[in-house]
Amino acid sequence: MPNMYDSAYDLEKAIRESEEFKELQQAYEAVMSDSSAKKMFEEFRDTQIALQEKQMQGEEITEEEVEKARKIVELVQEHPGISGLMDKEQRLNIIINDISRIITKPLEELYGTTSENDQLN
Amino acid sequence: MPNMYDSAYDLEKAIRESEEFKELQQAYEAVMSDSSAKKMFEEFRDTQIALQEKQMQGEEITEEEVEKARKIVELVQEHPGISGLMDKEQRLNIIINDISRIITKPLEELYGTTSENDQLN
Ligand SMILES: [Ca+2]
Ligand SMILES: [Ca+2]
Repeated sequence: MPNMYDSAYDLEKAIRESEEFKELQQAYEAVMSDSSAKKMFEEFRDTQIALQEKQMQGEEITEEEVEKARKIVELVQEHPGISGLMDKEQRLNIIINDISRIITKPLEELYGTTSENDQLN
Repeated sequence: MPNMYDSAYDLEKAIRESEEFKELQQAYEAVMSDSSAKKMFEEFRDTQIALQEKQMQGEEITEEEVEKARKIVELVQEHPGISGLMDKEQRLNIIINDISRIITKPLEELYGTTSENDQLN
């Protein structure tokens, strides 16, 4: 049985060499090498992060900010390079979430079974 | 090259069959099968969770609550079964954190490199 670290490095290699990661990498590099696409993508990211931070801190989001966010979302969705990049990000994120669920299963079962027992006790 | 899911299941198996996980499992089951240890451990957990929730919601923590938490920490630290379980939890948590860093490295490098470039641009 290989040890946990060997298996983790094998998984890292599988991620790095996957079609999904390579396609994300290409899409990201294509956007980053096109200065107007890069600017639009970074403005979109900055707007999303700023709104999230405001929401988390319970600050009010103005109508102007909502409108600005709506417009930039519309722009990036209509940009084939950026919308393609976002699709590829989402695709890999789903896989990474699946992987995370798979590898935390032993711990979940250990504690989860006991929670079930608690309800029966 | 094995695919990402195959590698993830291999890693799950490596975790499940590791000495670290088996020892945690044994320590957990020993505590859970001793009703007074189980009660103490669960009271400790409940106290920690309640305090964390209060802190996250910005609620005030009373002197009585701090004192109660201090006492239960002292009790569990002096209980060999529970303190052993907590050591084993911490040991596996460190490994799981390492694993998480290893498998998120490809994505970190993809986005991280660009952040470095941003500073140079
Ligand atoms: Ca239980
Ligand atoms: Ca950049």
